[in-house]
Amino acid sequence: MFFSIIFFTSFMVILIHCPDQKGLIYQVTHILFSLNLNVIRNDEFVDLSSEYFFMRTEFQGSCNVMLLKERIKKVLPAQSKIDIFKDEPKKLILFATKEYHCLADVLLKCQYKELNAEVMAVISNHHSLEKLVAQFGLPFHFIDHTGIDRLSHEKKVLAALEGYQPDLLVLAKYMRIFSASFVSHFPGRIINIHHSFLPAFKGANPYRQAFHKGVKMIGATAHYVNEELDEGPIIVQNMIRVTHRFTPRQMALAGKDVEKLVLGNALKMVCENRVFIHGNKTVVF
Amino acid sequence: MFFSIIFFTSFMVILIHCPDQKGLIYQVTHILFSLNLNVIRNDEFVDLSSEYFFMRTEFQGSCNVMLLKERIKKVLPAQSKIDIFKDEPKKLILFATKEYHCLADVLLKCQYKELNAEVMAVISNHHSLEKLVAQFGLPFHFIDHTGIDRLSHEKKVLAALEGYQPDLLVLAKYMRIFSASFVSHFPGRIINIHHSFLPAFKGANPYRQAFHKGVKMIGATAHYVNEELDEGPIIVQNMIRVTHRFTPRQMALAGKDVEKLVLGNALKMVCENRVFIHGNKTVVF
Amino acid sequence: MFFSIIFFTSFMVILIHCPDQKGLIYQVTHILFSLNLNVIRNDEFVDLSSEYFFMRTEFQGSCNVMLLKERIKKVLPAQSKIDIFKDEPKKLILFATKEYHCLADVLLKCQYKELNAEVMAVISNHHSLEKLVAQFGLPFHFIDHTGIDRLSHEKKVLAALEGYQPDLLVLAKYMRIFSASFVSHFPGRIINIHHSFLPAFKGANPYRQAFHKGVKMIGATAHYVNEELDEGPIIVQNMIRVTHRFTPRQMALAGKDVEKLVLGNALKMVCENRVFIHGNKTVVF
Amino acid sequence: MFFSIIFFTSFMVILIHCPDQKGLIYQVTHILFSLNLNVIRNDEFVDLSSEYFFMRTEFQGSCNVMLLKERIKKVLPAQSKIDIFKDEPKKLILFATKEYHCLADVLLKCQYKELNAEVMAVISNHHSLEKLVAQFGLPFHFIDHTGIDRLSHEKKVLAALEGYQPDLLVLAKYMRIFSASFVSHFPGRIINIHHSFLPAFKGANPYRQAFHKGVKMIGATAHYVNEELDEGPIIVQNMIRVTHRFTPRQMALAGKDVEKLVLGNALKMVCENRVFIHGNKTVVF
Repeated sequence: MFFSIIFFTSFMVILIHCPDQKGLIYQVTHILFSLNLNVIRNDEFVDLSSEYFFMRTEFQGSCNVMLLKERIKKVLPAQSKIDIFKDEPKKLILFATKEYHCLADVLLKCQYKELNAEVMAVISNHHSLEKLVAQFGLPFHFIDHTGIDRLSHEKKVLAALEGYQPDLLVLAKYMRIFSASFVSHFPGRIINIHHSFLPAFKGANPYRQAFHKGVKMIGATAHYVNEELDEGPIIVQNMIRVTHRFTPRQMALAGKDVEKLVLGNALKMVCENRVFIHGNKTVVF
Repeated sequence: MFFSIIFFTSFMVILIHCPDQKGLIYQVTHILFSLNLNVIRNDEFVDLSSEYFFMRTEFQGSCNVMLLKERIKKVLPAQSKIDIFKDEPKKLILFATKEYHCLADVLLKCQYKELNAEVMAVISNHHSLEKLVAQFGLPFHFIDHTGIDRLSHEKKVLAALEGYQPDLLVLAKYMRIFSASFVSHFPGRIINIHHSFLPAFKGANPYRQAFHKGVKMIGATAHYVNEELDEGPIIVQNMIRVTHRFTPRQMALAGKDVEKLVLGNALKMVCENRVFIHGNKTVVF
Repeated sequence: MFFSIIFFTSFMVILIHCPDQKGLIYQVTHILFSLNLNVIRNDEFVDLSSEYFFMRTEFQGSCNVMLLKERIKKVLPAQSKIDIFKDEPKKLILFATKEYHCLADVLLKCQYKELNAEVMAVISNHHSLEKLVAQFGLPFHFIDHTGIDRLSHEKKVLAALEGYQPDLLVLAKYMRIFSASFVSHFPGRIINIHHSFLPAFKGANPYRQAFHKGVKMIGATAHYVNEELDEGPIIVQNMIRVTHRFTPRQMALAGKDVEKLVLGNALKMVCENRVFIHGNKTVVF
Repeated sequence: MFFSIIFFTSFMVILIHCPDQKGLIYQVTHILFSLNLNVIRNDEFVDLSSEYFFMRTEFQGSCNVMLLKERIKKVLPAQSKIDIFKDEPKKLILFATKEYHCLADVLLKCQYKELNAEVMAVISNHHSLEKLVAQFGLPFHFIDHTGIDRLSHEKKVLAALEGYQPDLLVLAKYMRIFSASFVSHFPGRIINIHHSFLPAFKGANPYRQAFHKGVKMIGATAHYVNEELDEGPIIVQNMIRVTHRFTPRQMALAGKDVEKLVLGNALKMVCENRVFIHGNKTVVF
């Protein structure tokens, strides 16, 4: 995703994530102004509890990206993080198991270029969705997990990924848990949709848990995956009402619309370079 | 709340809660028809997981309530529960500590007769809200909890309640926990508002918990109080969006509107005899 | 949709729509009880402004449907409407123009049997969606409207429909208006999704209208089509927040998720026989 | 609200509203940096359709406000609007007629300092709410409209306002329409709550209109008042679900919670200097 080319003239995004200090907005916008670059949208946030500064700048114009990055780095405090993204589609690998709805929604949105992303392939531990993926004319990798241990399975997944160089792995109702070791290959680059309002109803069968608890709303959470189950930084959440009339099956059916909404919104944000990971939280502009 | 008078002609509500069997709707409505009573609204629900039947019937007409109850009882299976309520205001005792918003909302709605309820008095373990209660011209009982144990404090509360014969105790941001023994005096008659989407963020400081978790929505839950902390049957829940910009204090401020909305809706439902308690869940018509 | 077979044992739905009178619930449930039929779910509503009664009964058991209908008819007032539906999929013809999202959502939900419906074919006045329909292996009828008048175009549409005997026509972002004459062929059987909260922003370009008005929410409305533009009985509505940052194009993009949610919910309700049309309104159980 | 004092050290807000040009953020933040002022929060927006730039800056520090304003003015294009606000409570005059809920909500929030505002007095054309205002110990001006023409009534209102020098007039369910002449005395300083999702259901009795239309959601709109009825720039909108079961009276009752939520949110935004009026729209940071 990072720039290999030197000169570029078009829509770009700068993400700055650093300890707060006085004058940061001024100093960064000064550099852009002096390079005759045109700021289209600018967002800033100071997290007062950690005293961190976040800034996202969309700009247009022709510049030497490496040089720009260097110049900005100089005005930032030590331990700053700065990325500059060209507005080009993220390369996605989708993971799914048996449920079609999240997978299909991402496939459709990418087919019609509504996410800033393109799907390279789908990986699954079941055959159920093979036909669906074929409808979209995309590669489907069936990687069986039966009869082998987690490590061996993940090795096969890693091997399958190798050719693709994906920007993001999207777990679109993938019903397996990745080991910390697997996750460490893709830090901040795996996104999962969990079918509950986290931290409520972690783990297996959240709708059944919700049914037994008698809640009056059900939700979904899109989050980055880290080494702890259903504990990574939350990107988007949403909820809908249910009543005593809903069985677990009906909750699951109604929940599908929320799940795909939430995953779709989260992917839009991530693929448009709008999301910072900050500890176990996110900043979403 | 139950009828002492024998004949009554007006708006009434029957609540039936019993093991399911064929023909229940027919048999109950038959009785009402034969007594020339006019059904205004009828709601039924069969909980398939427990095979229980729930029916709420609003009717008008003149009848001997005791006799009606007896006749209906005869067509129901053993272990059925049947209540007949006259449409008269529930008598409430409100409990609060320092936050005004839920208390004031209930006081206002009762002053303007928007809940089917009247407030008899307010009990608090702090003086903060004494002035507010005085604005509404209602008795305020300050019952200090400092320097005494829970049991002694609850004894004083029970003593204060004795004169009132309340239908419901409403914990409108009352920051103390009642013992199982206290709760057992008012089974299914204590309602609490908790400032989170339960079961997430039980116990103290839910907004601080929500802040540290980085959730993107905050909510409130109105529930019956039972012997377990924040575990009683849920009546109403609602949520609003928050962003990374919200501090715990701003979450608390934004949450106030949801808390009073949720408590107000729950009280409306309970005071209009629309809520059944069924194990650790509710059925709300 | 109506029964041709005489005896049937399975899940069925009775819809009754008649002037209100005392004892209707009792009389209808009496008949079901006497035939040993098992009521699974029962909903009733009395519209006090028109004094009309609505009842929907889901039941199981073996019965002579014609006879059942006759027996119920006898206890209802004159001018009553009674329908008995077998729980079988509705046959849909979908109409669309250029936007894929509503069409694809219905195609997917039907492919995975989440609506009680099956898509027979898609009709369009453009070629844009031909590829998408091919992905689902369904017939696509391109019926050009250029160079011919509305009547001639509608004749061709009627001809295309003839072989299908559809239960419902679903306008999934079909950007043409049907004449009153066309609509009269399918009374209460055409469903449209309009991309605004009706009655706000009728007619063309609702997102542009919303943008110029500066509203803070945008919505969608699924409604039956009658002879007046965007005026038919509303089935489902929903809304999402927007801000000053949304251009008309961004509103349209964000609105897509709401549109498909609303159309999907409305179709679910209609295909499960949960919707009564009552004048220019609906009753949805 | 504007500064009379020259030096000030505390929390302040700059609002800039001007034709867009390159470098504005840089130039303004440069001035703040050079004066050693600390930016706490900064929001910017470029409206591409009108090519206007909006910037709101919260800062802390000691400065000569007049000088600061002059220095910023110099870097802005001609026809720019710049305001600098001290974080002090806005002075409100509330108007109401018979309904208590919006009035009481604002009175409570101001009593507990949750809005950046204080209520100076309440003006009404009815006696209904006199007791409520007395509960809050505030002046109540009954200004009768019967038997006199609009102009004469408005003269009396203007006379009553004269002593107060209010920042904002808040129409908290005030059931009279102000003339364009009256409104012209308070440009951008009158806020109204309308009980519908505008532009749907303008004018009288929106809940009755909503009932007859059969909508499935009802809403509320807080907006600035201009010379056209229910047409001023919208600040906040919200909605809730209704069903066929809702009578107009029940819609009105359910709507009260939304109305007060919407008005409360709008006042919070306006009193914290977060709202720009731009033509017939708003920008809300």
